[in-house]
Amino acid sequence: AALSIKWTINRVLSALAMHIVSVEALSEMTQHILEAAGTPSDLAQVVRESLVGANLAGHDSHGVIRLAPYVADVRAGHVQPAARATIVSEQQATARIDGAWGWGQPAARLAAQTAIRLATQFGVGAATIDRCNHIGRVGEYVEMMARADMIGIALCNAGAAVAPYGGRERMLGTNPIAIAAPRSDGQAPLLLDCATSGVAEGKVRVALSKGESVAAGLIIDREGRSSQSPADLYAGGALLPLGLHKGYGLSVMVELLGGALSGMAPSVLPEYGNGNGTLMMALNIRNFVSLAQFTQQAAELSARLTGSSTAQGFAEVMLP
Amino acid sequence: AALSIKWTINRVLSALAMHIVSVEALSEMTQHILEAAGTPSDLAQVVRESLVGANLAGHDSHGVIRLAPYVADVRAGHVQPAARATIVSEQQATARIDGAWGWGQPAARLAAQTAIRLATQFGVGAATIDRCNHIGRVGEYVEMMARADMIGIALCNAGAAVAPYGGRERMLGTNPIAIAAPRSDGQAPLLLDCATSGVAEGKVRVALSKGESVAAGLIIDREGRSSQSPADLYAGGALLPLGLHKGYGLSVMVELLGGALSGMAPSVLPEYGNGNGTLMMALNIRNFVSLAQFTQQAAELSARLTGSSTAQGFAEVMLP
Repeated sequence: AALSIKWTINRVLSALAMHIVSVEALSEMTQHILEAAGTPSDLAQVVRESLVGANLAGHDSHGVIRLAPYVADVRAGHVQPAARATIVSEQQATARIDGAWGWGQPAARLAAQTAIRLATQFGVGAATIDRCNHIGRVGEYVEMMARADMIGIALCNAGAAVAPYGGRERMLGTNPIAIAAPRSDGQAPLLLDCATSGVAEGKVRVALSKGESVAAGLIIDREGRSSQSPADLYAGGALLPLGLHKGYGLSVMVELLGGALSGMAPSVLPEYGNGNGTLMMALNIRNFVSLAQFTQQAAELSARLTGSSTAQGFAEVMLP
Repeated sequence: AALSIKWTINRVLSALAMHIVSVEALSEMTQHILEAAGTPSDLAQVVRESLVGANLAGHDSHGVIRLAPYVADVRAGHVQPAARATIVSEQQATARIDGAWGWGQPAARLAAQTAIRLATQFGVGAATIDRCNHIGRVGEYVEMMARADMIGIALCNAGAAVAPYGGRERMLGTNPIAIAAPRSDGQAPLLLDCATSGVAEGKVRVALSKGESVAAGLIIDREGRSSQSPADLYAGGALLPLGLHKGYGLSVMVELLGGALSGMAPSVLPEYGNGNGTLMMALNIRNFVSLAQFTQQAAELSARLTGSSTAQGFAEVMLP
């Protein structure tokens, strides 16, 4: 089975490198790998949809490229592939979910569905996930909420890789924040999904492999000096927060809202093990204004932004 | 009365410039000015506490320096000084507040108190404010929530002054986000309160008055060219978002969560008049983990951050 998995992973990666794999074939191979690693079929389907969905959304960093480390996580005992997330307590508009150290994606999908259900009943709902492995592309879950006519908010902490503003030690995760809101006329939701670090670690790794430098202000070396050499990150350096002190502040708050509130702890503390301490919130738009008014204003704002004049050096103004 | 107000404002500003005014005297003068402008005593007290509190928090930009434009707003009819904010509807864990175009601070305080009450009952609470004037230092309200053992989240939109990433036109407000969480052992809450623009407009104005330049990446001129000359901002230029595309995305989402959800509309749309379309949310920590565990982890994270090694050019690692 081990050889079979390795062979299949290599086949997938080779196929991807050659840009010849169809969605159907990629999905089938991904499902096969996850099941061979001990994942029940229904859970494998959720993880597979999330990974292939990230590729289709243009975020290969959160797509099937994760299969190799995922399988390694199973072998190392970090992921219990057959474990199922459950709601361990629900009080009024809040819920606590136990990810049971299974795959993070089904746990995160349960959290989003729970937040939607609570917000349908109470106008706003919040769910945390404890013992939660990597949940993948966070934008996926807020988009689910937006498609249910909610504003979706999701955030999570992660293993410490980012230095505080003014510091040189890895004290914070890349700590993404995602927010989505529906628009009128069948348009896709407006969606923000970004790490609170200036750049994702994966992009620095890509630059390293290509022998390229990175932009200024993104990483420091082990002595806390600004660097544009990717190798410095992997020689004891650290990522820098998004936008100096402000992104640092956001990241600290994600450690509390994601890490401390879920029970997983801020990632620099010894209680933190691994994975994504996660918080998801849904706001039922209809409790505040009419859905038609909200989605119309979201669509009009989008049109104003994309129709506005560009700055020097830009061909278009894009949406988040 | 007009002369008296002007005289008193000038006296306050002169005294401040000489750094000789006591808190008591400043409070008394501020109260006098607000009452002379037609504000009932109890509402004037809330606005006065907010303004003087901002000075005491070190944010003079949101302190009594605002009195002159505030009085001008009353004269122009933007602020109805005797109008009182009310809760116009409450459904489960959500509330809609009408600021009635009175002073923004009492409306914002009502929203924070309402979010706390709803989160006490439902575990999470959310309140929006429509027809809301300038609410002052947003951090004040999330700190109220944190002192009630809640996580506090507040955000609002504002008049368009910021260009989208890649654009040159003013399409977004400075759109602040504030988050606070309690810590153990009687420490002040951890508090983030930042505009989603790279710099506040007031700081560019200060640089202009001093004949100084501003750092790169903060403003563009009317042609959309990067500029470090403060005068360019006031000659048709714009502020830039925090951290390129990421701060832009956050700002767009604040236009929706603050502007569209409150009913005030995103600030670039014709429906938007003036002021701060506001959303406040409180999360009751006890619904998720024990308060002692949360506040202890918040305190430990703080200690780890401030005790960590500094980067080149920094004397200490500070907290948000």
